[in-house]
Amino acid sequence: MTTTTHAIAAPSPGAALSPTTIERRDLRPDDVLIDIAYAGICHSDIHQVKEDWGSAIFPMVPGHEIAGVVAAVGSDVTKYQVGDRVGVGCMVDSCGECEYCLAGTEQFCVKGNIQTYNGVGFDGENTYGGYSRQIVVKDAFVCRIPEGIGLDVAAPLLCAGITTYSPLNRWGAGPGKKVAVVGLGGLGHMAVKIAVAMGAEVTVLSQSLKKQEDGLKLGAKDYFATGDASTFKALRGRFDLILNTVSATLPVDSYLGMLRVGGAMVNVGAPGEPLSYNAFSLLGGNRVLAGSMIGGIAETQEMLDFCAEHGIGAEIETISADQVNVAYDRVENSDVRYRFVIDAATIGA
Amino acid sequence: MTTTTHAIAAPSPGAALSPTTIERRDLRPDDVLIDIAYAGICHSDIHQVKEDWGSAIFPMVPGHEIAGVVAAVGSDVTKYQVGDRVGVGCMVDSCGECEYCLAGTEQFCVKGNIQTYNGVGFDGENTYGGYSRQIVVKDAFVCRIPEGIGLDVAAPLLCAGITTYSPLNRWGAGPGKKVAVVGLGGLGHMAVKIAVAMGAEVTVLSQSLKKQEDGLKLGAKDYFATGDASTFKALRGRFDLILNTVSATLPVDSYLGMLRVGGAMVNVGAPGEPLSYNAFSLLGGNRVLAGSMIGGIAETQEMLDFCAEHGIGAEIETISADQVNVAYDRVENSDVRYRFVIDAATIGA
Repeated sequence: MTTTTHAIAAPSPGAALSPTTIERRDLRPDDVLIDIAYAGICHSDIHQVKEDWGSAIFPMVPGHEIAGVVAAVGSDVTKYQVGDRVGVGCMVDSCGECEYCLAGTEQFCVKGNIQTYNGVGFDGENTYGGYSRQIVVKDAFVCRIPEGIGLDVAAPLLCAGITTYSPLNRWGAGPGKKVAVVGLGGLGHMAVKIAVAMGAEVTVLSQSLKKQEDGLKLGAKDYFATGDASTFKALRGRFDLILNTVSATLPVDSYLGMLRVGGAMVNVGAPGEPLSYNAFSLLGGNRVLAGSMIGGIAETQEMLDFCAEHGIGAEIETISADQVNVAYDRVENSDVRYRFVIDAATIGA
Repeated sequence: MTTTTHAIAAPSPGAALSPTTIERRDLRPDDVLIDIAYAGICHSDIHQVKEDWGSAIFPMVPGHEIAGVVAAVGSDVTKYQVGDRVGVGCMVDSCGECEYCLAGTEQFCVKGNIQTYNGVGFDGENTYGGYSRQIVVKDAFVCRIPEGIGLDVAAPLLCAGITTYSPLNRWGAGPGKKVAVVGLGGLGHMAVKIAVAMGAEVTVLSQSLKKQEDGLKLGAKDYFATGDASTFKALRGRFDLILNTVSATLPVDSYLGMLRVGGAMVNVGAPGEPLSYNAFSLLGGNRVLAGSMIGGIAETQEMLDFCAEHGIGAEIETISADQVNVAYDRVENSDVRYRFVIDAATIGA
């Protein structure tokens, strides 16, 4: 027994998205049925539709930035009630027993976490994401969206928010720290807001000064163009932390040169091409190059609470279901300030 | 007014070393005159003699692993007395005022630390290293060698010891942690001894199994050949920390694959060629790639005290002054177990 729900799907690799219906499983004892209100469009949705990251499962219903309201709960669910405001991010399940799950880093589950879409659950069923009217998710993978953040601006927090919050938190962004955010896109604009709220002094490093006004409005103290070679000289040895949110292949050594002694450059964007660096760039100054992948469920809840406390949501442009393909083109052209959010009520309407 | 002392010097880039005499400055109020007992041969001595790292100063008296006895002290020196056992490492001065000096990381002095040799002091005079009978060094850059470590096996601690102790300490080697040491040479064998003494479970990763018996004797629990591709598969996700002591250009992604989630690979060796890595190797597992350069003076003293407490010295082969050129050839052929130490009494004798 399943429930049919409206969705938007890519029928085959690289194809335009179109309306369809999908089945959602009947509630298991630990399941939550969510009426989706909004789903963010993450650049990785586009990569997966296009199979940029390898072979994928079709039809594909993308969407891992999901905000909505609980419509029903399974018999064992005590954490949520009908009417609760909730969100779902990049994962919907993990083994729950390995050391990484037990440590609250389900994204590194030794059996592999189950992706919200383009994944296969432990039950063997394909997963379908947030570009739909309803979704059924195990309660342990559902987070609470506190009052005070609109569901629309909360949706992108479930991926863009946690992806930037986690490394900023782990690598010590805070008062007295100078943090650079590379790229002012969907991830970057969240990184600026969150790092500023953490108390850090934030600088945006963007290819050009086109979005300078926005960056400063978001709370950045400085804004520099990386298209101008003098930037790297002017900022030499400046930052405690550089959070790189872009997927372009950067000149790593030039960026490491902007770190203070002991500073870290953390990448959350992943270019397909290998990157090159000189060992001396790390040795000279005990510097660090690191990666960070989303965050665990407990940390995602912590991030949502932090954002609510600091009045942080994403900067969004809300679209209807029939605008998704145009939105994809605009994301690829960096023509969005700063996140598209699909109004789920328009899906199948 | 200066003092003439016997030394071994390379008269020009790449030339064989030969006996000579050099001048040591008269004692300033904060200076210590040291009768050198032993000087270790570090691979970087050879790199600098050969100008592998860029243009150098000749004649060059190498040597930054110095152990000896205080022969005289300047009028303001209270920390040391004649007869004290002392050591000098890679640095003999720094500005003392910048944030990095004040933080005890003089190696990152914003004005540049003054290298023990192949450097120019703040007085404009060239520096000459430990392949000599005597040296004059500012008291703040002299460390105490505790009773219980022979001066011969202590000498290599001043570079090889601190270079490995500092990252092992900073990146949390200790009980419950699995540490891999890449390369079992001068640095590597010290890394194994120190990591074992810190309580970590240590694995040696060497090109072949030639030195396996030695590695296990030094306290390593496991020993694997990186020349065997199956090693990387067998050790996937194994280590909390990989300390890379070799200067070869390694396949970085393969090594990162042996790290646990959140693990770090720290490089103390510096290949001349750029290294290449895939961003996903860092993202997938929140992994870290870092560099580490020697250590500050306070940490060097801490390392010497730690080594004395744990009965750790280098494994050495003591040579006389006339064997230095042969020793250089053997170092380049990795034919030393594990550090050559020059008996300074044979210099000019």
